[in-house]
Amino acid sequence: VARLVSLVEDGSDQLREVMALLAPLTGHTHVVGITGAPGVGKSTTTDALLRCLRARGQRVGVLAVDPSSPFTGGALLGDRVRMQEHATDPGVYIRSMATRGHLGGLAAATPQALRVLDAAGFDVVVVETVGVGQSEVEVAASADTVVVLVAPGMGDAVQAAKAGILEIGDVYVVNKADRDGADLAARELHHMLGLAPGGPTQRPVLRTVAATGEGVEGLLAAIDEHRASGLRTGQLTARRTERAAGEVVAVAMAMLARHGQGLDRGSDLDRLAADVAAGRSDPYRAADELLAGLAPAPVSAVAMPTVPR
Amino acid sequence: VARLVSLVEDGSDQLREVMALLAPLTGHTHVVGITGAPGVGKSTTTDALLRCLRARGQRVGVLAVDPSSPFTGGALLGDRVRMQEHATDPGVYIRSMATRGHLGGLAAATPQALRVLDAAGFDVVVVETVGVGQSEVEVAASADTVVVLVAPGMGDAVQAAKAGILEIGDVYVVNKADRDGADLAARELHHMLGLAPGGPTQRPVLRTVAATGEGVEGLLAAIDEHRASGLRTGQLTARRTERAAGEVVAVAMAMLARHGQGLDRGSDLDRLAADVAAGRSDPYRAADELLAGLAPAPVSAVAMPTVPR
Repeated sequence: VARLVSLVEDGSDQLREVMALLAPLTGHTHVVGITGAPGVGKSTTTDALLRCLRARGQRVGVLAVDPSSPFTGGALLGDRVRMQEHATDPGVYIRSMATRGHLGGLAAATPQALRVLDAAGFDVVVVETVGVGQSEVEVAASADTVVVLVAPGMGDAVQAAKAGILEIGDVYVVNKADRDGADLAARELHHMLGLAPGGPTQRPVLRTVAATGEGVEGLLAAIDEHRASGLRTGQLTARRTERAAGEVVAVAMAMLARHGQGLDRGSDLDRLAADVAAGRSDPYRAADELLAGLAPAPVSAVAMPTVPR
Repeated sequence: VARLVSLVEDGSDQLREVMALLAPLTGHTHVVGITGAPGVGKSTTTDALLRCLRARGQRVGVLAVDPSSPFTGGALLGDRVRMQEHATDPGVYIRSMATRGHLGGLAAATPQALRVLDAAGFDVVVVETVGVGQSEVEVAASADTVVVLVAPGMGDAVQAAKAGILEIGDVYVVNKADRDGADLAARELHHMLGLAPGGPTQRPVLRTVAATGEGVEGLLAAIDEHRASGLRTGQLTARRTERAAGEVVAVAMAMLARHGQGLDRGSDLDRLAADVAAGRSDPYRAADELLAGLAPAPVSAVAMPTVPR
């Protein structure tokens, strides 16, 4: 698993083959996104959820999507240390994601890493992202169940609304609920959710103290309920299809970017460009032909294995 | 011309058809890129070149690629006012480019605007870009002849090196050469060019006082010489092909981005994504099929007119 996730981070050429082999094994993991501003307790909540899920006997993966900033990366690394207790548990896999070489960035790399953990048989994967930055928010929003965290006294509901994470929650949590201002934070959250145009007024707003585990069983129950209702209504399939659509476009973009950077030159592009430069073709027609010709793809021509090896 | 350039800025759906019709008319304009840090005198130099070219009887277009910042935009607008004297000259077309609606950004919009001016029969088009920002530098670098400006006393050669514009010049100019420090700036420039690994040591370093016109005939002669040598060696065709390649990739990227934003939904993407979500396909195979299926393109199927209408 670790080696395959590293291939994803590096944007390895082998990914094409790896993903073809993994595909038939996927579709079983429930992906829980946890997001919120820095300091609301995302890692602590992830940790607490992890304990509950392990107590049920479920295998759990954690993908921490760190922004590349060494500053934030450093802070998150400190939190990671708290998870060392799971290091010897074979039912747990924890990984901080970087996307150092992946041309598709977070948008392509995160779903591919999820795909690896899915194929490896993890029942639940928690994707923890800081709720800042467009790519990070998009990654969080593409989870099967999205948990948005706020904390008292941070004006977080307003901040969350500004960051664009208020709309994306399926379950809302006021963490650090033993602190002053928890009531106010919950009211503020209810208020903001009610104000949001077409907003998710029916969605639960819970309270937790993740550090002590208080309320975390309730959070897990809300996640379970969201999953069950998604299975019932078909919403879960719709969301997974949406996530796959984003992934497919990101991979296609990365293929094109390789051409743009000349990494795959010697292809049709040189001929097409010469025709455009000479006025024999135009950029749209050439782009059509480039796109149509981009799929030689030895692996894609191979029949997909339908039985796990 | 103005209406067609506006279509380019807006990323209009009509561009596909427009570009197909314009293609056979293109390939005659010499594109001169002028770049340098803010304050080195790019607009003044453009203005001075414009006078010389008009004195020869050539038709001249100017595309000023402004960063979207209203702050900088305002400053450049002031410079533009100086060009009002050309407003009634039918042999001159001056335009500040914005890329408000174009998904392909500057990389797609600028070459398309050049294509419009080329088809309209301008002999020379000057593309003026501030030498700051990756897209802006790439746009400057893709001109047929690239003029890099520095000014005395600004430590500009070092700044230019940092901004990545030192490598891209075909002709270097110390503008404001009547000021103290012009000798130093020229020496510094020669030095930096000599130090650059595989650097363009043979390329001319000229001096101008664009505000008075001093040295501008010499600059024009250097541009002519670069053009003549490019025609002789085939370098000009190679560079135009490279520019067209970037343009084709940018247009293809914009097509994909439309899919990513759901602007073209109802296409193959939904079906492909459903297959990926269900484990029946993988993102690479789906991306291949998406790219291959992206080219229905009514216009591209139409034979190109080979005779101007």
